[in-house]
Amino acid sequence: MKILKVIKIGGNIIDNEDALAAFITDFATLKGPKILVHGGGKLATKLANQMNIPVQMNEGRRITNADTLDIITMVYAGKINKNIVAQLQANTCNAIGFSGADGNTIVSEKRLTKPIDYGFAGDVKQVNTETLEILLKNNITPVFCAITHDKNGQLLNTNADTIASELAIGFASIYNTELYYCFEKNGVLEDVDNDDSVIENINTESYKTLKENKIIFEGMLPKLDNCFHAINKNVQKVCIGKSDMLFNTNNRHTTITQ
Amino acid sequence: MKILKVIKIGGNIIDNEDALAAFITDFATLKGPKILVHGGGKLATKLANQMNIPVQMNEGRRITNADTLDIITMVYAGKINKNIVAQLQANTCNAIGFSGADGNTIVSEKRLTKPIDYGFAGDVKQVNTETLEILLKNNITPVFCAITHDKNGQLLNTNADTIASELAIGFASIYNTELYYCFEKNGVLEDVDNDDSVIENINTESYKTLKENKIIFEGMLPKLDNCFHAINKNVQKVCIGKSDMLFNTNNRHTTITQ
Repeated sequence: MKILKVIKIGGNIIDNEDALAAFITDFATLKGPKILVHGGGKLATKLANQMNIPVQMNEGRRITNADTLDIITMVYAGKINKNIVAQLQANTCNAIGFSGADGNTIVSEKRLTKPIDYGFAGDVKQVNTETLEILLKNNITPVFCAITHDKNGQLLNTNADTIASELAIGFASIYNTELYYCFEKNGVLEDVDNDDSVIENINTESYKTLKENKIIFEGMLPKLDNCFHAINKNVQKVCIGKSDMLFNTNNRHTTITQ
Repeated sequence: MKILKVIKIGGNIIDNEDALAAFITDFATLKGPKILVHGGGKLATKLANQMNIPVQMNEGRRITNADTLDIITMVYAGKINKNIVAQLQANTCNAIGFSGADGNTIVSEKRLTKPIDYGFAGDVKQVNTETLEILLKNNITPVFCAITHDKNGQLLNTNADTIASELAIGFASIYNTELYYCFEKNGVLEDVDNDDSVIENINTESYKTLKENKIIFEGMLPKLDNCFHAINKNVQKVCIGKSDMLFNTNNRHTTITQ
């Protein structure tokens, strides 16, 4: 089977014009089928502030009322997605922007309103690869923003890390899929203040220990849960680190194994 | 050759939730390959007002500075496009949203800054049908917003009527293309205040007379220029009227012929 790379980038790249331009130049050179997934960065909050729409968060997750859904649809699927696509085209990478509604690629279920009502937040229920397969075979690169739909006309805000892992899982029977989470650190760190303290390998057992010893905590937990979910569902390779890991094989990063 | 319908809808449908829902239900039932092009309606101006960004127009055309380009990218490619796509999916029409940057489908040239600097406004230079052909053959419906790119990473604001006519022209050697401009009136009218005074056929000669007699004027002129441009470039059929003309063959409308 051919390799498919699913690459997720977050705020540290999206919020920095130069970092984004540099990443896109490198990303365009990656050979073979690939899918890019991008988060939203700080722009949605900035726009909400400009429009005097209050931002409500619970444990780091955005509560998505109707106004907020409009904002993230505008920022994620509009401004960020289209600018990334245009920049990829300038680098002769033939990209097409996607939400989960486009091509009915990612169907979600509105999250239950109890114990906390997250509003228009969706948990992925189904990934449809058929349309994406056609595009990948034609050397086209899908670029996903973190929006899905419920197939009944409702858009839903969905975690970008989850979109990346579900896409990688969805393609695992068609490609040898590799999932890369790019963020601002060199990987999962022993000491959060020391970027050299990369834990190069984490497996199910060591993950348990790292959690018990509170070496991994807070925001890293859902990210790593996504990693283990993917590796347990036939994704071949799961890595976390700076985006350099994609372009320089010597770059230190964390690899997740079963 | 098979028929391809290129259908453009404007503010009278987009700005009215019920009208949009009704149109989408009908549009989803149309058999055969089809492309939907939508304008922006009043939402972009509303958002600009909310953000205290001044709206500058010249002869009905928006002057697109960097802030305004952000706004229309957010509104056209984000909010409007993704909601239309989600609603089409709910009606089992497999749609994918497009700007001209996606799939490098529509390349534009930034308009000259003299005599008037329209900012980031683009005039269509090239339509690339290859990716769209693959999708149409797979029963997927492209949904275009009125944004293109210059292939150097710059998004550009482009007239939606022009996008529709250029798409129809671009496909004219592959399909028998039909171009439908849907708007709030029954067609081009003899008397602008009488919706029953539809001019059922306009050709190059009668167009000249209608212009001389000031029966056609102002906003209708660029629309009709797009129509004649299309009909002179091998588009098989060009019609203007209420969207009912698509679903009810008895509906009166204006047909443009050479």
